[in-house]
Amino acid sequence: MTKHFRKELEIIKKRILTLGSMVEDLVHDSVRAVDRVDVDLADRIIKRDREINDTEVDIEEECLKVLALHQPVAVDLRFIITVIKINNELERIGDQAVNIAQRVQVIAKRPKPPFWFDYSEMGEKAQKMLRMSLDALVNLDVDLAYRVITMDDEVDKIKNDAYDKIKQAIKDLPERVGYYINLLLISRHLERLADHATNIAEEVIYLVEGEIFRHAGY
Amino acid sequence: MTKHFRKELEIIKKRILTLGSMVEDLVHDSVRAVDRVDVDLADRIIKRDREINDTEVDIEEECLKVLALHQPVAVDLRFIITVIKINNELERIGDQAVNIAQRVQVIAKRPKPPFWFDYSEMGEKAQKMLRMSLDALVNLDVDLAYRVITMDDEVDKIKNDAYDKIKQAIKDLPERVGYYINLLLISRHLERLADHATNIAEEVIYLVEGEIFRHAGY
Repeated sequence: MTKHFRKELEIIKKRILTLGSMVEDLVHDSVRAVDRVDVDLADRIIKRDREINDTEVDIEEECLKVLALHQPVAVDLRFIITVIKINNELERIGDQAVNIAQRVQVIAKRPKPPFWFDYSEMGEKAQKMLRMSLDALVNLDVDLAYRVITMDDEVDKIKNDAYDKIKQAIKDLPERVGYYINLLLISRHLERLADHATNIAEEVIYLVEGEIFRHAGY
Repeated sequence: MTKHFRKELEIIKKRILTLGSMVEDLVHDSVRAVDRVDVDLADRIIKRDREINDTEVDIEEECLKVLALHQPVAVDLRFIITVIKINNELERIGDQAVNIAQRVQVIAKRPKPPFWFDYSEMGEKAQKMLRMSLDALVNLDVDLAYRVITMDDEVDKIKNDAYDKIKQAIKDLPERVGYYINLLLISRHLERLADHATNIAEEVIYLVEGEIFRHAGY
């Protein structure tokens, strides 16, 4: 591998981490926007998504450029392909944050019903999974990637808890079903967000462990 | 481009279309399973997803092999990267069909409530979008890809209609909220399925039109 290629790889790693931080901030703010039913913050989240989309396109272009110029093989090729896929996951996590912000815009127009689900724990776990999955990528840390996958079950558990409680709240006060369905959708968006972090972790595992089988490759 | 590379490209195109057909069948059956609340069909759908996952991995391996062996540049490189991304979308469409099948397993255990939403139109549209998006890929047909994107709005409209009607059904019979939420989730899975078809169409547009800007490339 040439020194130039190694340098390009480092730049790509840095860029994907920067995108990761942008997305992480968006997720953090989306959970805060829910907690406070903060419609101004929700509006800002929706505007910031554009920057994330642009960055995703730039990173993919960068990856294609590196592939065309350096024509890497074996592990380096797989790394770049993995980055392209993870880049895509990050953009989708941003979309989920936007979906959450849109739910906030909807519920902000109506009075709060008596029942409320606190999404802070679920949001924190999802954020942590995102950070850990990106650390796993940069350090090729399979153990960390496996930990992300186990955390996904914890997020699912909270989602199920939210589901049961919100279902009961609807039974108790069916005229507020519209509001409560929005709360339900917030938990599904957080769950999908965690799923994308899990996808990132799975990509890292495949990148590292798939390599064992394919070691004699190309 | 060598003759050998051209041949490999044709094989990859055929394989992605085969995967597309498998996924299409799964989607078709999942909508039928909902319509009939057919739990046996739902079970079979869930089992067949494994084959789709394996095929996705094989196609990605094939793409990586072609990249490593032939080191394509410009439009050929972008085409292979697009296939890798679309391959991923197809696997996720399969996941949505599985999610729908799981909803069928849940509702099959309980008696049908008085209200029912007919998902056949939404399912047909989503299937059509999937087929069109793959045709657009193979023929690099941008007009067809744009038509897929406009169809996404039609699917969203039906989803909104389902939402309004199911919300009313919950208000009318709040003790059946659990059942109705499953109906609601089916429409969201169909919507996401259509979103993935839209993603495929967008990839095709980017593949073809991005090329114009990047023509002097590499």
